[in-house]
Amino acid sequence: MRVNGRHYGTVWLDGKKVRAINQRLLPYQFKIVTARRYTEVAQWIKTMAVRGAGCIGVTAGLGVALACLNAPSKNYKSYIARAAQVILKTRPTAVNLSYAVTRVMGAVRLCDDLRSMRREAVKTAIDILKEDAEAGRRIGEIAQPLIKQGAVIQTHCNAGWLAFADWGTALSCVYAAKRMGKNPFVIATETRPRSQGSKLTSWELGQEKIPHVLIADTAAGYYMKSKKIDLVIVGADRIARNGDVANKIGTYTLAVLAREHRIPFYVAAPLSTFDLDCAHGDKIPIERRSPDEVLEVTGPGGQSVRIAPKTTVADNPAFDVTPARYIRGIITEKGIVRPNSKEIGLLFRQKRS
Amino acid sequence: MRVNGRHYGTVWLDGKKVRAINQRLLPYQFKIVTARRYTEVAQWIKTMAVRGAGCIGVTAGLGVALACLNAPSKNYKSYIARAAQVILKTRPTAVNLSYAVTRVMGAVRLCDDLRSMRREAVKTAIDILKEDAEAGRRIGEIAQPLIKQGAVIQTHCNAGWLAFADWGTALSCVYAAKRMGKNPFVIATETRPRSQGSKLTSWELGQEKIPHVLIADTAAGYYMKSKKIDLVIVGADRIARNGDVANKIGTYTLAVLAREHRIPFYVAAPLSTFDLDCAHGDKIPIERRSPDEVLEVTGPGGQSVRIAPKTTVADNPAFDVTPARYIRGIITEKGIVRPNSKEIGLLFRQKRS
Repeated sequence: MRVNGRHYGTVWLDGKKVRAINQRLLPYQFKIVTARRYTEVAQWIKTMAVRGAGCIGVTAGLGVALACLNAPSKNYKSYIARAAQVILKTRPTAVNLSYAVTRVMGAVRLCDDLRSMRREAVKTAIDILKEDAEAGRRIGEIAQPLIKQGAVIQTHCNAGWLAFADWGTALSCVYAAKRMGKNPFVIATETRPRSQGSKLTSWELGQEKIPHVLIADTAAGYYMKSKKIDLVIVGADRIARNGDVANKIGTYTLAVLAREHRIPFYVAAPLSTFDLDCAHGDKIPIERRSPDEVLEVTGPGGQSVRIAPKTTVADNPAFDVTPARYIRGIITEKGIVRPNSKEIGLLFRQKRS
Repeated sequence: MRVNGRHYGTVWLDGKKVRAINQRLLPYQFKIVTARRYTEVAQWIKTMAVRGAGCIGVTAGLGVALACLNAPSKNYKSYIARAAQVILKTRPTAVNLSYAVTRVMGAVRLCDDLRSMRREAVKTAIDILKEDAEAGRRIGEIAQPLIKQGAVIQTHCNAGWLAFADWGTALSCVYAAKRMGKNPFVIATETRPRSQGSKLTSWELGQEKIPHVLIADTAAGYYMKSKKIDLVIVGADRIARNGDVANKIGTYTLAVLAREHRIPFYVAAPLSTFDLDCAHGDKIPIERRSPDEVLEVTGPGGQSVRIAPKTTVADNPAFDVTPARYIRGIITEKGIVRPNSKEIGLLFRQKRS
C-alpha cells in the first residue's frame, strides 16, 4: 500500500537481511528497520515493532529463513531448531506465528544439507509473505457484496495493511470498496491500551485518503445507538474450529453492542489465522501484557506518560474471545463462511483439493 | 473524605472566597485553588478543574453566592442575573448545575435589598453543599442490602467524593461497605478520553485503601465474561422522568454488557440529578467536547501528548444515554427506585411531604 505516494510492504527479505516498517514509531515517524540476526526479528515481534496477526506470521517465517541463512555449517540443525523455538515463544495468541514457523520448519526438515535448507526456507518464507498479501487482496474483493455505496463501516484496532504483508483484512474490504468508487466511511475506535486505532488505522486511512472519524472506545455504544452504521468488520488473531474468534481486547464488547443494535458483525481473516486443532475459544491462550500499557500512554519519541497514581494496580489482557454466535460471517480469501465447524471444515477441504 | 489522612470536601466557601481541589492536577498534585470572582468559578467548571455532577452543582451555587457577595450596590440585580447566566452556560449535560443556580436565584428573588440577598444566597448555596454531601452518605447506606461480603463492584468514570461535595454516589456505596467490614473490591475502567477512572477513581480508592484494579475501557467485556462481578454501579449527570440516564460516555456500553451477562446494573444519584421536566433521554443535551481530548492524552504537568496523525478527525461526545430498561434500580438518598415515571414521581411526592 501507499506511504507518501510510494508502495511499501510491512516486512520483506533483502538479501541476507530482513527489513520492516517500525510500527512503534508510527504515526510520528516512518522508518525502516533492518535485522541481520533472527534474535533481532524475535525482538521486533516481542516489542511490537511489527504487530498484527499476518505481519507477525510473515515476519516469523522470514526470521526462521534468516536463521537458516546465518546457521553455522557445524550444528546448523540445532541452531535452526533453537531459532524456531525462540521465535515461537515471542507472543502466544496469534496463530499465524506458529503457522509460519511450522511451515518453514516443515519445508527444511527433509533437506539433506544446509544449502538446500537455506533455499527451501527462503522460498517458503517468501511464499507465506506473498500468500498473505494475496489473501488480503482477495478478502477485499470477496467482501464487496456486503458493502453498499456510501457504506459506514466500524472497525477496531488495526486490521489494515500494517497488520499483514500488504492489503490487510478488515481494511482491505474498505480499500477495495474505495477502488470501486463506493466512497466508504470508516469509524475507528482508539483501541486502548496501545491505541492502534489512533496511531495505525488513522494513519493508514489517511495515507489511502479514506474519510474516517476516530472515537474513544467508550463512544462505541453511543455511535451504534445514534448513528447509521452499516456493518462492523474486525480482524482476528486466532479462529477456533467452531468459529470463536480471538482478536484485540475490546472486540467482544463491539460484537455484543453490534448484536444489540442489529448491526452485522463480520470478521475478516486469511486461512492462516484458523486453528483447527483448537476446538473452541476457551482453549485460545490470551496474552497478558505489562500493566504499564494501561497505566501509561506512549507518545511521540516513545516517551511514556503516566496517567494513574503510582500505587495503582492494573490488569492488561491483550485479547478477548468473541463467541461464534455473535458473528454473522468470516470473510476469507476462499469465500465468506458462517462461523461453525461444518463451514470452516469445508473451507479447508476445498483448500486441499 | 480523606486525603493523606486529613478530611477534605471538594469545594467550600471561605469568607468571601470559594476554594476547591483542582481536579485537573490529580493524581499528580493535590492543590487547592481559590476564586474571588464568579467568573473564575465559571472557568473552573468549564475547564473541569471541578467536575462531576454534584460538584458542578455545588460549585455553581457557591459561584452565584460569590456574585451576590461581590455585587456592586448599584445595579446589583442585573449583575447577579448575569452571573447566573454565565455560570448556567458553562456545561450543558449535568442538571445539578441548573438545579443549584435556579435554587439560589429563587432564594434571592424575593429579597428586598442586597444585604438580605447576600445572606440568602450564601445560606442556600451552603444548604445545597450540605445536602449534597448528606445525600451521598445516605446513598451509601441505602445501597447496603445490594452489597454482599466480598462483593466485586464495577464502576465507570468517577462518581466518588470528588464528583460531589463529599462521599459521592457510586463510590459512596463502596465506602459504606468498607466501613461495614464487607471488604469490597472495585473494577475501575479508565474512561477515555479524560481517563477519570485512572486519574481520579484510582486515586480516591487508593486514599481510602479500597483494593481495586484498573482496566482499559476495551477490557470491560472480557471482565464481565470471564470474572465474577456482582454488580455495576455508576453515577448520573441527568435522569429523565422515565428513568433514562445520561452519564459519562461509555456508561451505555457497560449497561449493554451488564445485561448480556446478567449482572445487575445500578445508577446512584441524588434527587438533584433528576430532571422531571425532561420526558425521556433523547431530550437530554449531550455535550460535545474538543476532539483534542481523543487525539491527545494529558499527563503530569498538564502537557498533552498527541497519539494520532495531525490530519485525523475525531469526535468526542462526552456523555451517552442509557435507556431505563437496562437499569435495575436507581439508588437515591430516599431509597432505591425502579427507573420508571411512577416510582420516580413517588420519590418527589415523598420529598415534598
